[in-house]
Amino acid sequence: MTDAMKDAAERAAVLVEALPYIQRFRGAVVVVKYGGNAMVDPAIAHAIAEDVVLLRAVGLRPVVVHGGGPQISELMARLGKEPEFRDGLRVTDAETVEIARMVLVGKINRDIVAAINVHGPIAVGLSGEDAGLILASASRPELGFVGEVAAVNPAILHRLLAEELIPVVSTIGSDSEGRPYNINADTVAGALAESLQAEKVVFLTDVPGLLTDLDDPDSLVRQVTAGELQVMLETGRLSGGMLPKAAAALHAVQNGVGSAHLLDGRLGHVVLLELFSDAGIGTMITKVAAP
Amino acid sequence: MTDAMKDAAERAAVLVEALPYIQRFRGAVVVVKYGGNAMVDPAIAHAIAEDVVLLRAVGLRPVVVHGGGPQISELMARLGKEPEFRDGLRVTDAETVEIARMVLVGKINRDIVAAINVHGPIAVGLSGEDAGLILASASRPELGFVGEVAAVNPAILHRLLAEELIPVVSTIGSDSEGRPYNINADTVAGALAESLQAEKVVFLTDVPGLLTDLDDPDSLVRQVTAGELQVMLETGRLSGGMLPKAAAALHAVQNGVGSAHLLDGRLGHVVLLELFSDAGIGTMITKVAAP
Amino acid sequence: MTDAMKDAAERAAVLVEALPYIQRFRGAVVVVKYGGNAMVDPAIAHAIAEDVVLLRAVGLRPVVVHGGGPQISELMARLGKEPEFRDGLRVTDAETVEIARMVLVGKINRDIVAAINVHGPIAVGLSGEDAGLILASASRPELGFVGEVAAVNPAILHRLLAEELIPVVSTIGSDSEGRPYNINADTVAGALAESLQAEKVVFLTDVPGLLTDLDDPDSLVRQVTAGELQVMLETGRLSGGMLPKAAAALHAVQNGVGSAHLLDGRLGHVVLLELFSDAGIGTMITKVAAP
Amino acid sequence: MTDAMKDAAERAAVLVEALPYIQRFRGAVVVVKYGGNAMVDPAIAHAIAEDVVLLRAVGLRPVVVHGGGPQISELMARLGKEPEFRDGLRVTDAETVEIARMVLVGKINRDIVAAINVHGPIAVGLSGEDAGLILASASRPELGFVGEVAAVNPAILHRLLAEELIPVVSTIGSDSEGRPYNINADTVAGALAESLQAEKVVFLTDVPGLLTDLDDPDSLVRQVTAGELQVMLETGRLSGGMLPKAAAALHAVQNGVGSAHLLDGRLGHVVLLELFSDAGIGTMITKVAAP
Amino acid sequence: MTDAMKDAAERAAVLVEALPYIQRFRGAVVVVKYGGNAMVDPAIAHAIAEDVVLLRAVGLRPVVVHGGGPQISELMARLGKEPEFRDGLRVTDAETVEIARMVLVGKINRDIVAAINVHGPIAVGLSGEDAGLILASASRPELGFVGEVAAVNPAILHRLLAEELIPVVSTIGSDSEGRPYNINADTVAGALAESLQAEKVVFLTDVPGLLTDLDDPDSLVRQVTAGELQVMLETGRLSGGMLPKAAAALHAVQNGVGSAHLLDGRLGHVVLLELFSDAGIGTMITKVAAP
Amino acid sequence: MTDAMKDAAERAAVLVEALPYIQRFRGAVVVVKYGGNAMVDPAIAHAIAEDVVLLRAVGLRPVVVHGGGPQISELMARLGKEPEFRDGLRVTDAETVEIARMVLVGKINRDIVAAINVHGPIAVGLSGEDAGLILASASRPELGFVGEVAAVNPAILHRLLAEELIPVVSTIGSDSEGRPYNINADTVAGALAESLQAEKVVFLTDVPGLLTDLDDPDSLVRQVTAGELQVMLETGRLSGGMLPKAAAALHAVQNGVGSAHLLDGRLGHVVLLELFSDAGIGTMITKVAAP
Repeated sequence: MTDAMKDAAERAAVLVEALPYIQRFRGAVVVVKYGGNAMVDPAIAHAIAEDVVLLRAVGLRPVVVHGGGPQISELMARLGKEPEFRDGLRVTDAETVEIARMVLVGKINRDIVAAINVHGPIAVGLSGEDAGLILASASRPELGFVGEVAAVNPAILHRLLAEELIPVVSTIGSDSEGRPYNINADTVAGALAESLQAEKVVFLTDVPGLLTDLDDPDSLVRQVTAGELQVMLETGRLSGGMLPKAAAALHAVQNGVGSAHLLDGRLGHVVLLELFSDAGIGTMITKVAAP
Repeated sequence: MTDAMKDAAERAAVLVEALPYIQRFRGAVVVVKYGGNAMVDPAIAHAIAEDVVLLRAVGLRPVVVHGGGPQISELMARLGKEPEFRDGLRVTDAETVEIARMVLVGKINRDIVAAINVHGPIAVGLSGEDAGLILASASRPELGFVGEVAAVNPAILHRLLAEELIPVVSTIGSDSEGRPYNINADTVAGALAESLQAEKVVFLTDVPGLLTDLDDPDSLVRQVTAGELQVMLETGRLSGGMLPKAAAALHAVQNGVGSAHLLDGRLGHVVLLELFSDAGIGTMITKVAAP
Repeated sequence: MTDAMKDAAERAAVLVEALPYIQRFRGAVVVVKYGGNAMVDPAIAHAIAEDVVLLRAVGLRPVVVHGGGPQISELMARLGKEPEFRDGLRVTDAETVEIARMVLVGKINRDIVAAINVHGPIAVGLSGEDAGLILASASRPELGFVGEVAAVNPAILHRLLAEELIPVVSTIGSDSEGRPYNINADTVAGALAESLQAEKVVFLTDVPGLLTDLDDPDSLVRQVTAGELQVMLETGRLSGGMLPKAAAALHAVQNGVGSAHLLDGRLGHVVLLELFSDAGIGTMITKVAAP
Repeated sequence: MTDAMKDAAERAAVLVEALPYIQRFRGAVVVVKYGGNAMVDPAIAHAIAEDVVLLRAVGLRPVVVHGGGPQISELMARLGKEPEFRDGLRVTDAETVEIARMVLVGKINRDIVAAINVHGPIAVGLSGEDAGLILASASRPELGFVGEVAAVNPAILHRLLAEELIPVVSTIGSDSEGRPYNINADTVAGALAESLQAEKVVFLTDVPGLLTDLDDPDSLVRQVTAGELQVMLETGRLSGGMLPKAAAALHAVQNGVGSAHLLDGRLGHVVLLELFSDAGIGTMITKVAAP
Repeated sequence: MTDAMKDAAERAAVLVEALPYIQRFRGAVVVVKYGGNAMVDPAIAHAIAEDVVLLRAVGLRPVVVHGGGPQISELMARLGKEPEFRDGLRVTDAETVEIARMVLVGKINRDIVAAINVHGPIAVGLSGEDAGLILASASRPELGFVGEVAAVNPAILHRLLAEELIPVVSTIGSDSEGRPYNINADTVAGALAESLQAEKVVFLTDVPGLLTDLDDPDSLVRQVTAGELQVMLETGRLSGGMLPKAAAALHAVQNGVGSAHLLDGRLGHVVLLELFSDAGIGTMITKVAAP
Repeated sequence: MTDAMKDAAERAAVLVEALPYIQRFRGAVVVVKYGGNAMVDPAIAHAIAEDVVLLRAVGLRPVVVHGGGPQISELMARLGKEPEFRDGLRVTDAETVEIARMVLVGKINRDIVAAINVHGPIAVGLSGEDAGLILASASRPELGFVGEVAAVNPAILHRLLAEELIPVVSTIGSDSEGRPYNINADTVAGALAESLQAEKVVFLTDVPGLLTDLDDPDSLVRQVTAGELQVMLETGRLSGGMLPKAAAALHAVQNGVGSAHLLDGRLGHVVLLELFSDAGIGTMITKVAAP
């Protein structure tokens, strides 16, 4: 067997290994939450765009959700707007939510759409305000326009997905009087996945997955059930940025989403590998123990 | 006849007068270009939102296009960005187009969507970058990211209109490599109207209509054919802000749009009155003389 | 503000006031029972035709039902046919029902269709015999071919409404052997409204609405619930021509029709005003008290 | 072979003989003009109703057109209305056309619908006034409301046929102002067949078919081309009631109708036999000689 | 009345007699099990092909199922393959099932398809292996590849029937690993009829119907309910080839099939006569006594 | 970078490399001609089944065509049927074509269907006789039932492909009287590809591709235009089994098929590699030189 033939056989093997996953996930909705450093490294942004395009090409229906805290802070700083915190949470006045909206909807969302649309006219940017997608309510009145998801109307997502378009969603919601609220992106990703009864929700993070000790990569949990995760949350074994992701993942799998995944977004193409290969990667959360 | 009966008769007469127009424009696409002071007066913004909602309610298919020059300048000023002009045209470097995009897509578009969606989940904000709606090319290289419309792909508009949604379009286009360009909103409104073969394109302005003498309201032209308008443009009878509107209107009616209208956006409900009453209002441009 | 502008503002206000009603009644079926003097005054006939055309134009689905007792009597007289009564009810032999059918289906129905079709090819005349629309049974054998509604098969109405056509229904039904029966038009209007689960059934009468004292216009009842109306009927507070209308209205709202209305058909455009303005008009019957 | 078996074999042979015709005429529109004595003999009326029901049952799409001259005359007489003739043609004033309309739409049409609907809720009566089916113009002004077919709008027929309903058409048309006209039924049958591009138009008459000598049944023409028929018409070889049928048949086959047939309506089930057996029957007119 | 007219009247009567059956069975699925001597007599094969084509032509949806035991034995003999029996049942090793499959799928199925397709491109041959139509399991392990119906996936039949094609099914099923099994054709016909919720399943046999004494044609049972048939089976009143047919018929009518029929396939056109005439023929099995 | 990460990166690279091909070939029809030794080696048969399943999984529409000369000869030998040749071509009498049909339709086709259906109920076996797929005519009368493709009616293929089923076609055609003919499989593959206007037709052979010297693998031609191939054929540079494949490929690309490919079927997964990787493999024939 020549080298060329060996190489060909290996390539074929990868494609053939993907076959059962492609058949299984045909038509499935996958919500990808995209944030953190992955968003600022152009090479990774490019890899993630390729991943969602490939998902769509083989028949899945990806939805992208993004946040953008650091970029909001940066524009606030440039505009001389002093951040104010209460109990460690940012107070969001009317001007702050306008700035957040400009950054999320008018900059970050646009950059993701542009990265995808290099492959064809297939991505459409959305805010939670469009077609009533996300009805928001104030999370805690003293924090101003920090919102919670009061209700999701997924009609516009169903329409775009039916046309094989990729929705890219900024996490701004509006209340019944049209006022905008900024909402945590992990929470939104989970809520959209639930309302779409998605097959998977994938949270891209800056760590290898769910770590019981943030400083020790070896504390990575490969698989965990909803019940086990709940215990972890209740016994305080998780901390920091792990918390909203873990909570959103838990809520999602308890409400009809097939599985939730915490993957290391700093590596390229993790979404692809998680979906289409036998390689175990990051952390998988399911309602009950996977068979 | 009591007063109540007289009032009732008058109300009925208005509705009945609207009947033939409603029948005639059933299913027709109407592009409304929205800009200038109309955009900063909340009462007028509210009235225009009501108008497009009523258009949709009686079976038309409105598309809103907006600009936002003054608001862009304001944010640039706040960010300490010095505007630079060449031949009276603003030079738009990469940072400037990012600021323009944040203001248009992330603020003005959002406000219009919110004003409409108070009536129901029916408006969806779009940028020309979404689903390849507007392919842009550099207008003049030395001006940077000032764009022209190279091509329109109206598929996403057709999809949203078919679902009875109201697209609200920001005038950012992207080139084949995904770089954003800022494009004149009058030009975009005309180009979208053409590509949709709209029944009407309506430009809301800060003057009563097409004036041959900007300082003299009595110089209002009520009706004009494409041929006559071309002569006006060629003989220099129009000036200032009239020029891009007149040029876009002329191009539109010469390329399949039923009629173009210049209306005084400072009055409330002008779109409604133009469409559904016998009252002549503003300026109407048609390919040939209306019968 | 000039007079023209004031007038324009008032016109716009009427249209804007109609907006929430148009949105709310989109796609709703409205059955209009048309009879009495309204039918013999050409101006009113013209106004009612305009009303149903406008209803359709803004997205409702009107169905017209008509009677024609006086016109039947007139042709009988001309043909030298002596009317015969038992207990105050007309005995309808085979010849009489043939005459009734000729007048209803071959004359009155035709005139209504013609008045509507001046606005476009949108009305279609039907008899209850067409496509099995109304299965009739003898009301009281000794009265001959006076019928009751035994069953309604609304398939043909659904088909025509789906094509945005306006059915105009004559109140002749047939039994399983194809024999025609003449049926009270108020009863038919109510039965069709029920079988279509209509939003509204509107009875046009020769009085201002439901009067507890037929001679006193001030005894007009503006709003009444099914329960209250039942009490009125049981306590004999209603009389004469009020009875079949009140009974049909009561049955309809108790069986799924949103509301029933008794309006003064002698005024023009009452249907329009009832549906599209805030003006209270005639009598509204609902299952429970309106909020 | 027993008698029962022989009988069974003969029955099977009839059905099998029908097979190629059923396959060939699948989905084909057949216009049946029904008039003369066939209409007054209940047994024949019953047989014709069975025929059109069977046509529909095996996949054809029959349309019935009827006249009713004698019945109109009869009602006029009863109403003391003196017929007036000019050049042998009846003058039709406004009252006369109202009477004609009552008889055609309100009586004869109803009887045919009833005869068919004994088999199921499948027939729908129409006048040429419904949904703009027949636009009429005055044939000769001095004759009053005697009409010609100015235009056919077959949309309503297509809709009913698509729902597998059988339209039964009265030959009243209306002009653009909604005035009714009485039109010759043979002409209407031909015009509808043309506008539907029917496979066949069948004229039921009181004679065995096209006779060159009305008094001699042996002068029956079995098959004739458009060219030959035109010569017959031009050389005066046809007369009386043959003329409008021959003219309508000729016009139809020259304008896209597959074939026209003159059959003896006094026999039962002639339509069935013409369509589904090898038996030559009546007269067949085709554009060119049948192969 | 001439002879020709009498003949015409008789032909018409046969067609008219068929009318109510055609109306009643419109769109109904009829499974025809075809086997025995009918299959080897070309004239009968031709008649049966005509029957199923006529069924389809008048709107029914026939499905043909066939067996072929004698032909399998013949090819085995030619290939020198010794048949082996256990308890009177043929042992089917891998080679035997390959031979059975070649004969059924590659010869008999083809001949039936060809006989039908002379009438048009309307028959499609299927094996139970196609598109997972019949999942088989081993009937008794010691018999080898003799199968039972484990499950039916009728999707491919629904698809072909929706396109007005006639499926012709060979009774080979496959297990989950793709191994073929030979299954009794009567059983398959019943199972397909059940899974399609067929109106009728017709078993063509070499006797006049269900005989309680196989040697006495007078012992023919004309009509029998499921309950009565069950008693017959339990009390051993049936024997030989009657048994699988009777069992399949019983199971079918107990599981949603309208009626089952045992007809004498040696007569031509029995299927036609059973369906479209008043003639009682063969044996009809229904769940409860027919009214 | 760990080994696992390197391996993951390599796997991702293969999938990403496939992306543009998947996008480009979305919905494209690919005809795969399958024959020779590939058909007798179970591992290769398994690999080819996986390939067509993967093609379908990512949105292409594969059609499989197969021959089976050696297997036909084998059964003939077992049945003691002496092959007879004329000018080197096999004479095919009625018995021979029956044997060929049993082997092709009843054995080889079945085995391919079974291999695919292990992955799901997605393959359907067809003969050219089904639904009039292939109309055959005698190639040369003295050869008997050796056929040529007279016409292709691809309707049944379009129907199955629209349902995402994989047609597997045996190369038996029938003439207008239903007689079967055996047709060369390369010719059929080309004819089906033409009639489907396929993107590609792939011929799997026992050599590396088009060889100018059958004994020298180095004489492999990688790419060739229709013009160049025609010259090769005309100047006798090709011989043996190359001839029918080359002729079919040439005809196909000259009649609307995007490209034809000769691949070494003895290697596993060649179809996959040809379609989804940048690796040049076998011989590609296009109408004009590929860019």
